Amino acid sequence: MTAYTATVTVRLKRGVLDPEAETTQRALERLGFDLEDLRSADRFELDLTADSTEEASERADEMAERLLANPTIHDYDVEVTERE
Amino acid sequence: MTAYTATVTVRLKRGVLDPEAETTQRALERLGFDLEDLRSADRFELDLTADSTEEASERADEMAERLLANPTIHDYDVEVTERE
Repeated sequence: MTAYTATVTVRLKRGVLDPEAETTQRALERLGFDLEDLRSADRFELDLTADSTEEASERADEMAERLLANPTIHDYDVEVTERE
Repeated sequence: MTAYTATVTVRLKRGVLDPEAETTQRALERLGFDLEDLRSADRFELDLTADSTEEASERADEMAERLLANPTIHDYDVEVTERE
């Protein structure tokens, strides 16, 4: 068994409104920063042990499908790296 | 001027309690997933134009310092890539 960290990034699908990101962008503009767009996403770093990178990635994928992301409004991607 | 995307990842400093991450971890465990640790972070993708990667990175840094992160409880890192 090897120790892995799986990073799951969950973002809103294109077209889904994100009032929080809009507010953040406007606040930055009010501070004088020039921005074309701002998107926000949630990032989960999962420490787990598995037999292979593929297995770690599959399990992270399943966690995203079952709980971390809502498939109606979210896209997600998974990245796995070995730990230590 | 070149178009860049600066990705700012904001995470809680080590030692700062994160009840939301704990709840998420426990919910995954209740679904049968085996996890050693779960950390959550916020990710902001900023589209901006600048003269160089360095300038884009500096501006993203300043935005993190001024608004996106709270230096008392957060660490952040900035990653800049060219767009298109």
